[in-house]
Amino acid sequence: MDGARPVRAPRGTQLTHATHWGAEAPLRMLMNNLDPEVAERPDDLVVYGGTGRAARDWKSFDAMVRTLSTLKQDETMLVQSGRPVGVMQTHEWAPRVLIANSNLVGDWATWPEFRRLEQLGLTMYGQMTAGSWIYIGTQGIVQGTYETFAAIAEKRFGGTLAGTLTLTGGCGGMGGAQPLAVTMNEGVCLIVDVDEARLRRRVEHRYLDEVAGSLDEAVDKALRAKDERRARSIGVVGNAAEVFPELLRRGVPIDIVTDQTSAHDPLSYLPEGVALEDWTEYAAKKPEEFTDRARESMAHQVRAMVEFQDAGAEVFDYGNSIRDEARQGGYDRAFDFPGFVPAYIRPLFCEGKGPFRWAALSGDPKDIAATDRAVLDLFPDNDRLHKWIRGAQERIAFQGLPARICWLGQGERDKAGLAINELVRTGEVSAPIVIGRDHLDTGSVASPYRETESMADGSDAIADWPLLNALVNTSSGASWVSIHQGGGVGMGRSLHAGQVSLADGTDLAAQKLARVLSNDPAMGVIRHVDAGYGIADRTAAEHGVRIPMREG
Amino acid sequence: MDGARPVRAPRGTQLTHATHWGAEAPLRMLMNNLDPEVAERPDDLVVYGGTGRAARDWKSFDAMVRTLSTLKQDETMLVQSGRPVGVMQTHEWAPRVLIANSNLVGDWATWPEFRRLEQLGLTMYGQMTAGSWIYIGTQGIVQGTYETFAAIAEKRFGGTLAGTLTLTGGCGGMGGAQPLAVTMNEGVCLIVDVDEARLRRRVEHRYLDEVAGSLDEAVDKALRAKDERRARSIGVVGNAAEVFPELLRRGVPIDIVTDQTSAHDPLSYLPEGVALEDWTEYAAKKPEEFTDRARESMAHQVRAMVEFQDAGAEVFDYGNSIRDEARQGGYDRAFDFPGFVPAYIRPLFCEGKGPFRWAALSGDPKDIAATDRAVLDLFPDNDRLHKWIRGAQERIAFQGLPARICWLGQGERDKAGLAINELVRTGEVSAPIVIGRDHLDTGSVASPYRETESMADGSDAIADWPLLNALVNTSSGASWVSIHQGGGVGMGRSLHAGQVSLADGTDLAAQKLARVLSNDPAMGVIRHVDAGYGIADRTAAEHGVRIPMREG
Ligand SMILES: NC(=O)c1ccc[n+]([C@@H]2O[C@H](COP(=O)([O-])OP(=O)(O)OC[C@H]3O[C@@H](n4cnc5c(N)ncnc54)[C@H](O)[C@@H]3O)[C@@H](O)[C@H]2O)c1
Ligand SMILES: NC(=O)c1ccc[n+]([C@@H]2O[C@H](COP(=O)([O-])OP(=O)(O)OC[C@H]3O[C@@H](n4cnc5c(N)ncnc54)[C@H](O)[C@@H]3O)[C@@H](O)[C@H]2O)c1
Repeated sequence: MDGARPVRAPRGTQLTHATHWGAEAPLRMLMNNLDPEVAERPDDLVVYGGTGRAARDWKSFDAMVRTLSTLKQDETMLVQSGRPVGVMQTHEWAPRVLIANSNLVGDWATWPEFRRLEQLGLTMYGQMTAGSWIYIGTQGIVQGTYETFAAIAEKRFGGTLAGTLTLTGGCGGMGGAQPLAVTMNEGVCLIVDVDEARLRRRVEHRYLDEVAGSLDEAVDKALRAKDERRARSIGVVGNAAEVFPELLRRGVPIDIVTDQTSAHDPLSYLPEGVALEDWTEYAAKKPEEFTDRARESMAHQVRAMVEFQDAGAEVFDYGNSIRDEARQGGYDRAFDFPGFVPAYIRPLFCEGKGPFRWAALSGDPKDIAATDRAVLDLFPDNDRLHKWIRGAQERIAFQGLPARICWLGQGERDKAGLAINELVRTGEVSAPIVIGRDHLDTGSVASPYRETESMADGSDAIADWPLLNALVNTSSGASWVSIHQGGGVGMGRSLHAGQVSLADGTDLAAQKLARVLSNDPAMGVIRHVDAGYGIADRTAAEHGVRIPMREG
Repeated sequence: MDGARPVRAPRGTQLTHATHWGAEAPLRMLMNNLDPEVAERPDDLVVYGGTGRAARDWKSFDAMVRTLSTLKQDETMLVQSGRPVGVMQTHEWAPRVLIANSNLVGDWATWPEFRRLEQLGLTMYGQMTAGSWIYIGTQGIVQGTYETFAAIAEKRFGGTLAGTLTLTGGCGGMGGAQPLAVTMNEGVCLIVDVDEARLRRRVEHRYLDEVAGSLDEAVDKALRAKDERRARSIGVVGNAAEVFPELLRRGVPIDIVTDQTSAHDPLSYLPEGVALEDWTEYAAKKPEEFTDRARESMAHQVRAMVEFQDAGAEVFDYGNSIRDEARQGGYDRAFDFPGFVPAYIRPLFCEGKGPFRWAALSGDPKDIAATDRAVLDLFPDNDRLHKWIRGAQERIAFQGLPARICWLGQGERDKAGLAINELVRTGEVSAPIVIGRDHLDTGSVASPYRETESMADGSDAIADWPLLNALVNTSSGASWVSIHQGGGVGMGRSLHAGQVSLADGTDLAAQKLARVLSNDPAMGVIRHVDAGYGIADRTAAEHGVRIPMREG
């Protein structure tokens, strides 16, 4: 893309571009999203998830850096699909950046219309944390994936995946977390990707143990490790639409099956019979034909998944919309297996739990070590949290600015945020910290094929909640707030909001953090109370989250 | 509906329910929207526009009143499709109420899915100002309609409609403004409605001069007035799908044709051959069949409109989506005539102009008289404004709390708002005033069949702008902010935002008003700059509205 260059967030305890941390923070995080350590295709401004961008084009990137560099403490920059379109006078409690990415009017929220508008230079795809500048590399997804596989272990296999074999596809920005999450749960993982470079990259990062030379070799090694109850992850180059049915045909004893190819965007799923090197050109030249073929291939892959389930395996959709694409590809049993959210994640959402995360603007790993200690001290009885943070410290390399993620719930996030702000105030942490989360969170997303699939009251498609979430975070002191459409599951299928807040050690930051980090998870609690979940009722009662309809 | 009762906003200069005006204001305006003088079907909580509601049900209404009555000055009530779902601690610059109504994820944003969810009690249709509590009766629409017909007079008929005949359909909450707007422009208007009661109601309010006993009588009277260049409006009972083609067949010399039946919701358009008294039951029992028949009838009506255009008339869609419904009803030339926005309104939007309005919480008409004087004084050279306000004072009866609307642009709205706040401060106005606007405004709506039809750059369907508008108003000091889906043109076809701000005479209110009433129209200016409109460029330059992409 025109203007491409290597970008890396400035480090250190001093302001480098902006005149205050309120503007320096989003600026460093925008740059960090484009750090070659973090982004999948930084030259194209693509951070993760197919084509999820941090900025619309390099001119827009430059204009955002320029604008943030002079932004005053009572001004707000407006970003429309990765391009700065305004600077307005607001006030010191207001966010410094307001972002709306990829939003289209309902009837027009389709990939062809989106691509037409993108071609015209009028929009970009923001995914979830790409266009909202709080992607922290694969650690984020490792944590979510770790929680998911831990829940499966709990549900089906007595608390451990030892002695089980998991089959999955897609070893990209998100999907590459799967092998590590499985082995952290003591299991064996066989992962298929068409692109050997993707598999090699995960080996480099120690998320994947090895790449097998052939499918036979991969199966042999996987079965040996399974028999020996040894944690092991093995990558194999191949097309999931061919490999999944082949493994089914061979009767390989697979216990768990899922997939994280970029199925939500059919142009990012390689159809059977297309060579890796022809992919980009073919998809660009004949998008409709490519889409049809991709969907047909997905139908083959999903049929194999359903038949694995018929044979007794635990099978789930891992949030990439592959079931709906396979249905459009002509396979009518595509929805026979559940999404991961209703199956494993929703009970956590009911407690306001979700992917809480923070990043050290200093760039100093010691700052994260200090916050790790503080968070562990704060929740001494939370074994899962302790196990996760210690495991992450050992096995997960930072990408870009050092960062940490852990799932925290109502009553926990505000405590952690205030503790972190206190560390900045006292100087135990050397520079401000930003505290945010994924858009995939308890009260921040409407996505009927993923986060809000099969809600108890049928309210899957109601999209008021993420909008209220964005409005309430804007009203509570967040530093930047974003509303995106189509993240994760594709155009027309989701609406979601994000927030990032600044812990700069000031009293004002403490007041803001107390509000944002209570109100933000509380959106999830009230959303699940409204939908009729008992766990959410108990969470609301315990933490004094008000439910106006019950106060009469 | 369960719990129905007459509601009317409290009057007077003292707080009646809440402990501060920040909460009393939305409370009075919620009640005012349900005042039988204001609302079309108050028992069902329907304010206007088919089924546009102020609250989801009476229990929700009661809960909102209860919640606002104790709301603190640093708390915010969250409303999800007309039901209060949360109360959270925010701060004094934050809105007191945040509203998201009728929002659905794109692929699910259809009438059948919406109705399914509404049946389940999970949502309501908020239209634009119904669910956001700033409907002021028909004055609002008279002003917009007046501006539209004035623009047509300018464009085609030498500055006046004298000697012209306008044909239109639909004399409901919005459409009932048409006869008055035409006669205020000195023209003759023939208006068709299936429901005689709707026509009689407009005669009572002096918006319509008379109801003819038959079509023959109506045509005679209309032609006589046209010949004599005498302003006159005549209602006739009939189905527009039959009357429009009949008038075409007869060769009646009609100059201007439009329509404001509730076409955006096919269940609110009576098909040919269905009796008025069977309407409700039929639509409820067989919604799909009813929809098909309504669309077929609309196709007949729109065909006549296109053929009037072929014969030389000025024909336009008046924002009710009838063209798309007629297209679905099988008529392929439906989009041969333009929407009113690109035809007449967009040049005003480029100057940040739109339906600015305010209401006197005291209930005292003298308060509006004082604000009228102040606004006239503020803009001594604006003839159109003077003509409008004087005309409105003479001919338009207040409905509910006294209110005024006039279209003001960038650099004007903030001046007017501050002047009004000053009147409250000095006591020339007896109680606080609320200042808001329609969702149909310059930078607050994405609606490819209406406000954003045929944008110069093709960006009709980009929906980031209304979301940024809501976020920036939330960041600037508005009192309540709303994001709605589907208003005006129906499910899946629009996304739009509203704001209402409080002028209580305090310094804080002045600071808030200065920001909101600059930033809110500035959203429209930057939206139209981005789309390539020269008038918007000039407006931005004149008023110092920053365009970050041009600052490099
Ligand atoms: N469940 C979650 O929490 C979650 C979170 C974020 C994203 N997602 C979704 O997961 C999916 C993957 O995201 P990502 O960031 O890893 O995307 P990515 O584009 O970085 O990686 C996708 C990978 O799939 C591979 N691939 C494509 N077609 C293939 C085929 N036919 N067979 C085998 N491999 C194939 C590609 O080579 C690539 O390595 C997306 O749909 C994303 O929206 C899920
Ligand atoms: N252009 C604008 O600025 C604007 C603003 C708001 C609303 N609207 C749209 O205008 C339309 C009308 O709004 P409203 O508030 O007046 O609705 P309404 O429901 O109050 O009135 C509609 C009227 O149409 C009549 N009607 C229905 N079917 C008919 C038929 N076949 N023939 C003749 N009359 C028929 C009804 O009896 C009723 O009086 C809606 O679609 C609304 O969304 C436009």
